[in-house]
Amino acid sequence: MTSCLVNALGTTPELASIFSDSSVISAMVEFESALARAQIRAGVIPPDALTSYIPPSDLEDVAAEGAASATIAIPFVERLRAQSRFAHYQATSQDLQDTAMVLLLRQARLLIARYAQRMAAALRKLSADHANTPMLARTLLQPAAPVTFGLKVANWHSASWRSWKRFDARFEEALLLQFGGPVGTLGGPVASLLAEELALKCPAAPWQTQRDRLAGLLCAGAIYVATLGKVARDISLLMQSEVGEVSEGASAGGSSSMPHKRNPSGSTVALAAAVRMPGIASSFLTAMVQEQERSVGGWQAEWPLLADGVQLIGAASSAMARVVEGLQVNQAKMAANLEASGLSSKGLGAAEEFRLQIMREAEGG
Amino acid sequence: MTSCLVNALGTTPELASIFSDSSVISAMVEFESALARAQIRAGVIPPDALTSYIPPSDLEDVAAEGAASATIAIPFVERLRAQSRFAHYQATSQDLQDTAMVLLLRQARLLIARYAQRMAAALRKLSADHANTPMLARTLLQPAAPVTFGLKVANWHSASWRSWKRFDARFEEALLLQFGGPVGTLGGPVASLLAEELALKCPAAPWQTQRDRLAGLLCAGAIYVATLGKVARDISLLMQSEVGEVSEGASAGGSSSMPHKRNPSGSTVALAAAVRMPGIASSFLTAMVQEQERSVGGWQAEWPLLADGVQLIGAASSAMARVVEGLQVNQAKMAANLEASGLSSKGLGAAEEFRLQIMREAEGG
Amino acid sequence: MTSCLVNALGTTPELASIFSDSSVISAMVEFESALARAQIRAGVIPPDALTSYIPPSDLEDVAAEGAASATIAIPFVERLRAQSRFAHYQATSQDLQDTAMVLLLRQARLLIARYAQRMAAALRKLSADHANTPMLARTLLQPAAPVTFGLKVANWHSASWRSWKRFDARFEEALLLQFGGPVGTLGGPVASLLAEELALKCPAAPWQTQRDRLAGLLCAGAIYVATLGKVARDISLLMQSEVGEVSEGASAGGSSSMPHKRNPSGSTVALAAAVRMPGIASSFLTAMVQEQERSVGGWQAEWPLLADGVQLIGAASSAMARVVEGLQVNQAKMAANLEASGLSSKGLGAAEEFRLQIMREAEGG
Amino acid sequence: MTSCLVNALGTTPELASIFSDSSVISAMVEFESALARAQIRAGVIPPDALTSYIPPSDLEDVAAEGAASATIAIPFVERLRAQSRFAHYQATSQDLQDTAMVLLLRQARLLIARYAQRMAAALRKLSADHANTPMLARTLLQPAAPVTFGLKVANWHSASWRSWKRFDARFEEALLLQFGGPVGTLGGPVASLLAEELALKCPAAPWQTQRDRLAGLLCAGAIYVATLGKVARDISLLMQSEVGEVSEGASAGGSSSMPHKRNPSGSTVALAAAVRMPGIASSFLTAMVQEQERSVGGWQAEWPLLADGVQLIGAASSAMARVVEGLQVNQAKMAANLEASGLSSKGLGAAEEFRLQIMREAEGG
Repeated sequence: MTSCLVNALGTTPELASIFSDSSVISAMVEFESALARAQIRAGVIPPDALTSYIPPSDLEDVAAEGAASATIAIPFVERLRAQSRFAHYQATSQDLQDTAMVLLLRQARLLIARYAQRMAAALRKLSADHANTPMLARTLLQPAAPVTFGLKVANWHSASWRSWKRFDARFEEALLLQFGGPVGTLGGPVASLLAEELALKCPAAPWQTQRDRLAGLLCAGAIYVATLGKVARDISLLMQSEVGEVSEGASAGGSSSMPHKRNPSGSTVALAAAVRMPGIASSFLTAMVQEQERSVGGWQAEWPLLADGVQLIGAASSAMARVVEGLQVNQAKMAANLEASGLSSKGLGAAEEFRLQIMREAEGG
Repeated sequence: MTSCLVNALGTTPELASIFSDSSVISAMVEFESALARAQIRAGVIPPDALTSYIPPSDLEDVAAEGAASATIAIPFVERLRAQSRFAHYQATSQDLQDTAMVLLLRQARLLIARYAQRMAAALRKLSADHANTPMLARTLLQPAAPVTFGLKVANWHSASWRSWKRFDARFEEALLLQFGGPVGTLGGPVASLLAEELALKCPAAPWQTQRDRLAGLLCAGAIYVATLGKVARDISLLMQSEVGEVSEGASAGGSSSMPHKRNPSGSTVALAAAVRMPGIASSFLTAMVQEQERSVGGWQAEWPLLADGVQLIGAASSAMARVVEGLQVNQAKMAANLEASGLSSKGLGAAEEFRLQIMREAEGG
Repeated sequence: MTSCLVNALGTTPELASIFSDSSVISAMVEFESALARAQIRAGVIPPDALTSYIPPSDLEDVAAEGAASATIAIPFVERLRAQSRFAHYQATSQDLQDTAMVLLLRQARLLIARYAQRMAAALRKLSADHANTPMLARTLLQPAAPVTFGLKVANWHSASWRSWKRFDARFEEALLLQFGGPVGTLGGPVASLLAEELALKCPAAPWQTQRDRLAGLLCAGAIYVATLGKVARDISLLMQSEVGEVSEGASAGGSSSMPHKRNPSGSTVALAAAVRMPGIASSFLTAMVQEQERSVGGWQAEWPLLADGVQLIGAASSAMARVVEGLQVNQAKMAANLEASGLSSKGLGAAEEFRLQIMREAEGG
Repeated sequence: MTSCLVNALGTTPELASIFSDSSVISAMVEFESALARAQIRAGVIPPDALTSYIPPSDLEDVAAEGAASATIAIPFVERLRAQSRFAHYQATSQDLQDTAMVLLLRQARLLIARYAQRMAAALRKLSADHANTPMLARTLLQPAAPVTFGLKVANWHSASWRSWKRFDARFEEALLLQFGGPVGTLGGPVASLLAEELALKCPAAPWQTQRDRLAGLLCAGAIYVATLGKVARDISLLMQSEVGEVSEGASAGGSSSMPHKRNPSGSTVALAAAVRMPGIASSFLTAMVQEQERSVGGWQAEWPLLADGVQLIGAASSAMARVVEGLQVNQAKMAANLEASGLSSKGLGAAEEFRLQIMREAEGG
């Protein structure tokens, strides 16, 4: 079992809980129960067939047997069939695993939405508060020209909010029932009843080896994380003692050897996520080249990519919400650095005009 | 200069032309000419300022000097300023390079749209033609159950058309003027006039270190390529002599040592693109974590990623259009393989129903 | 906590145990205990200072606090300092975390060596057994010319054994003590005594932001996995019912909907690992660009990459050992397919000569 | 043809020349000429067979025909066969393309060795010169403790020299003749004579779908680039006006809008390379999972990855040699920043001891 210590910075407690063993098993049981109810409604299995299963508890065995058969659906279903011979009736491993993952992703979406909204609210306020705070803009890390901190924050906001909305739209597209039997040809009324039971949308057809919607989700999430990483990088640079223009507040961490040191801890979490996400997105894209009606390796690589990826997205999003909410701004240092650069704060150009346009666009977006 | 031989499979002649040196220089000159025209209209530079530049022709020198100053904009602009002291007035390297790339991407979009439409037309016909052609569906490369070739093709179509549309929508979002001066604070009427001159949309504000829209474009393109790669993998598998169910037609290539061999050449081009694109998307995502108002390395990594990436997308798209248009289908072999598997073609389930729903959805999408 | 179900195919029970929470905590305690013993020997802390700590048991709290301070070392050390004020004396988070990871990697190396040796033994035998078994060689998945199965297996063996040896050599290079205090300037006799206590090599100097040795390890592991993936792909292709030349034996898995189906389950595990590893290696390479004496994000991204990566390597290695040990070869089908291709088995060229040379070279390697 | 402008920062003029069309064609002709000479020596073709070919000059046609047949070897060989019917006798596309690429890589190795040696010499001197220059060490971009600039530079040197040596060793392993005919079974004396003609090592057997050695080369190169990127990041951070401790010298570039600005241009080139290389390494790893005796897509993806990758490695290496050779160090600013941090320069610990050990180890390595 992967250590929660090893991945401490790559999740939040709430997201870790969604992708925990017990939660995964619950989602799998939820699929099978809903399937039984739908099949009873459709008259496909007897009305008194079991609809409520006892979740397997020997999860390490399920995992080990799953590794041997290249899918945990097989040992899982065996345990349910011991409870009811109608369990998993007509369904295939992929119906179960894809839909269970969709159910978990739906939970994760709600959480991350909260992180994103908190961050957006904090950025909106920060930008307005500093509409008229001049500071030095830097290109290639060299003094370039004046800007306002308000405009800088507005740019953080527009990109991160746009990226969140793009990500959210991909959830809307990807949260679909999977139900098509072994090769995606199983028709009849069960699919739509099952979608209803699970409150999921029913697609035009099963999507067994067509993984573009999930790829869209993970790529949009990777873009969102990179956008958060850009904010984190800016903050960690502005927080250097020699620059001293902002500081992470309550969330700032210390050091095991130097207790009084104040570190950009939240930004570090987001930057670590930004290092990891491109590799995860890249692997998912590679996995998409799936053979015929079920692949040898591609599909089987997806679960950990989705679970790790979505947790990283949430970790970055949560950390940056906290960072922005607590950000301390040192206007005097901004003024001093600008003055030391020999640049006049008169050259602020259209900073405020752009800021307002950005905020207006983000509002509408 | 990178060899056209080295990358022969990673582009098409039309796309290679768009990203050739002369085309890049043209786009850069186009930006500067339009800027001069816009600035004359705005009264920012004298009405008789030069608006038409002689393109630099010492391109290897421009490249070498560009490497030394970390941007080719500097040597390029020097050459234009020798022609007019108003050249590149108030603009920054990034205005020039970002907008020039956007102009090239706009050209590429039109080409790839044609490839995508050809492929879609061919797939629609192929699917309809084989609505009632039973064949073996395979999971983990093992015989699983019957399906129709029409449904299989419909699944190829829905995923590739949806992926193309998603990619196309990202062009719509990303094809924006960049114009903001050194740090993105340059206001006034020039931006909108310049956008008008170039027939580009003018964004709410400059987007100097906010690269999410271009990232969205490249990721959507990577998803599109992966979707094409899936079709290519299926075809290369169905084309094995032991399976023999389809064959690339006129486009099928030979062998330097075995002239009579028929190879899945078009599929190979698409699969090679599918191997390369995830790394390109991944690098672009990594590049997004850009420092302050212009990055040290991230932005500078983008041009070859965009140029290579878009050419790969076009190469895959063009190759697969050709493959599908010429695909030869062996219904007898499909029937024989199905029979040899011992599976009845009666279990075709909802194949036709799903096929129709898929085609209807794709029509609407 | 990441689900053992989600990652069931990405580890083995033995490796999962090495990277489990309790094992990670043990390694961290082992470091601190050895440090105390070394510091007592060096006279740096009192002779009666505590050398044996009670491992923290509130691991989810440690993880959550670690996320807040961007390193789990801080909450961990706090808990040890409550037991002894000399705990973690003069050390820094990175000394603790890097060395603990090295201790875990050392355990993993032994396990993976066993998988590699089992696979090598099985491949050597298989190659010898089939020195004279002609079969069809395929290029671009088309019939090309005859080869012997013995030579094909020899090629699998040479590449996988060479890749294992390369990976193993990188362990030798990377398994080093980390001990240098906050910025890598802590000298004195403690480092070498600590290395002795932990039976680790002591490097010329601390290697805080010089991560090339660990990158070398992970890249070599990724190459090893890709090599195993190539074997797995070949086997999954040879195992197609239409080809029927080999079959996974006892390890072959079934299907939740089609119990009698025989799947390339072990190959699937290896191929899924081969999909995931390039992204992990890529992220580690990205993480290497670390700021000054400790990075903001790069270093913090490493633990899960190393833990996940090494488990994937082991999962692929273990699965393919099992596959090759149990591989069933259908010589008759090989002969039939060769004959059906119209190629004579006389053109076997230097197959046996090459096979012998390969085996000799691998022996010496 | 890919623009030299698009990739201006991703190569050097010398490396661009090695991978130019004319150089690629020369290497291909060199292979075929050497093959003819070897086959004449072996008595396989008549003694008066042509050994000297006129290189094809219609390269865009070769490229376009190559795309259609999924290998440029076919149109290339056609053009040579028009000159001699013994051209490419018994050889396969892969013999030609792999060996030609090996010949180009051999040339690139010599160039990059020069860049690496220049950088090493400059770093050794810089480290010795500043053995006693105290400065602030920074962790998470916050002031941490004093270090010497000499030790910091020694760490840059040890990692970059070790990474270069590792990369160089992979060239040694990978620079092998490829010659085995269509499926790697072609024996006889030609291979060793051909190796002799080309001054290449002859492997135990053809290595058609065993690409681990080339993967080892590219991964080692990616590690080398990341190590250079770390140096570049440090320098770009130390060069911030607020820090002001070092500056790129003659190589420092300006700005198209702000001519007096001094930019970390060389570091930017290295950092841009560090952004791109992980994706290239990752794609090569993905490409390794090649089908049977020649893959559908994997092999065909390799050429541009190798050509682009090696040029990026050289671009980074050349740029950083130039940066380090010209680096200007501001000891007064180092002292001032250290003092401003409130840290005493007395805590320098074992900095000099470590520095000497590092230099000694690098000498031996």
